Amino acid sequence: MGLKVREVTSATNSLVKVFRRALAEGLTRDGWLCGEGPYFLEEALKSGSRATVRSVLVSAEAAEKHRPLLDRLPAESELAQIPDRLFHQIAGTRTPQGVAAIVEMPAFDLKTVAASRNAILVIACGLQDPGNMGTIIRSADALGASAVIALAGTVNPFNPKAVRSCVGSIFRMPVFAGLKPETVFKLLRDLRVRILGTDPHSAVALSTVDLRGSIALLVGQEAAGLPAEISREADKLLSIPIRAQADSLNAAMAAGIFLYEVARQRKFQFQP
Amino acid sequence: MGLKVREVTSATNSLVKVFRRALAEGLTRDGWLCGEGPYFLEEALKSGSRATVRSVLVSAEAAEKHRPLLDRLPAESELAQIPDRLFHQIAGTRTPQGVAAIVEMPAFDLKTVAASRNAILVIACGLQDPGNMGTIIRSADALGASAVIALAGTVNPFNPKAVRSCVGSIFRMPVFAGLKPETVFKLLRDLRVRILGTDPHSAVALSTVDLRGSIALLVGQEAAGLPAEISREADKLLSIPIRAQADSLNAAMAAGIFLYEVARQRKFQFQP
Repeated sequence: MGLKVREVTSATNSLVKVFRRALAEGLTRDGWLCGEGPYFLEEALKSGSRATVRSVLVSAEAAEKHRPLLDRLPAESELAQIPDRLFHQIAGTRTPQGVAAIVEMPAFDLKTVAASRNAILVIACGLQDPGNMGTIIRSADALGASAVIALAGTVNPFNPKAVRSCVGSIFRMPVFAGLKPETVFKLLRDLRVRILGTDPHSAVALSTVDLRGSIALLVGQEAAGLPAEISREADKLLSIPIRAQADSLNAAMAAGIFLYEVARQRKFQFQP
Repeated sequence: MGLKVREVTSATNSLVKVFRRALAEGLTRDGWLCGEGPYFLEEALKSGSRATVRSVLVSAEAAEKHRPLLDRLPAESELAQIPDRLFHQIAGTRTPQGVAAIVEMPAFDLKTVAASRNAILVIACGLQDPGNMGTIIRSADALGASAVIALAGTVNPFNPKAVRSCVGSIFRMPVFAGLKPETVFKLLRDLRVRILGTDPHSAVALSTVDLRGSIALLVGQEAAGLPAEISREADKLLSIPIRAQADSLNAAMAAGIFLYEVARQRKFQFQP
């Protein structure tokens, strides 16, 4: 059963070259998502019509081990097998699991998403840690956000480490990367989306503010916070009250708590 | 001015041996905390009377670079300098920063902490990721918890990776490691502390339950959840409502959101 496997042995084969580059970047030149591990492929397949698995590269060992998973590939996917040693060379992880996939993602339109009723947009400004970025996408997915936007200068949300931390959410959430602040803020103003900054120094507690309606939540780095040119775009700056002698919360944690408070105020009525 | 620096060059020197072992475990045999990096030492010094810096080991390069920090060591600390190459050998990190310290922590008494008014205890059950453990301690500190307890079988909260993720909170929060479930649950029952389990499958949303008074919050692994023998100890099982098609929240994120909801219901009146 299953797809026909093409055997490739040369490191200079064009598909191997595409995977080598894409595994480092997280994206192919066409903007398709590239990730590693059976779990990544499993999540892509589970996401149904939202994402289309285009190409799969497996090591000889993994081809054997993950046969049931590979049998679920759609007929139009391309499946190639390479020697274990070559897979190890091109993998981005230290202990590669022998499965890599290139997945075409649906093209989301930011304007449509931002104009949707009661939209919740998470805007990451300057975050550098891919693990935090992935955790934000995962929490945004769970807590009902409409999209995650990474402004220019923020870590790439399609970075393989970010994708690993977001556990499949990348196939469900609209994620926009490298957008210019001025473009995003102009769009939000035009659509009358309220812009809320998260700022540990603000005296206004998030729970004292009505967070219903369409909002954009600006999330900065934990130490530096929001850059001045970003925070002045906010209609309001809000904080999570914390114990006086404590340090700040981790950036992803702060974003998750904001999203929880937003969801709580909306009585957990999530959009599908 | 500052402390006199003892120069040590031998890998078999007894202090070097103590640091080598303690850097791997996170604790010395006396139960003193051992950590790496100038930030760790900085936080220990900032914590004031709560923690006492006993011994500091520096590489020759770091002794120069971190002079102002080392000048702040109390007179009773021991300060030793070793060659850069030797520091690299004993350090637990891949890019060591040349500073390691052994810090005596205050001895907290679990019974006293649990008996305090409106106590909030976080009980980690089976978590394996040290980064998650550290993030939980950091969030517990920020959001007003009284203590963090790691049950036997849970990752060591003094693990150097956990300590790095908790950013100084380890010097403020009472943290108890490796306790037997039966001992902890007996104590909680005796003190009439309400035991609340976090369970993604529970139909009871955390925000619908009164979370004031003394409580213990059981936090399990994200995939496996709480083991059955732990969750049956809970007076109630509560969930964070999430979007239907989404995956679970990260374990540390779930714990942080629970602690936020607890703090919100208490109107952010933190105990000092």
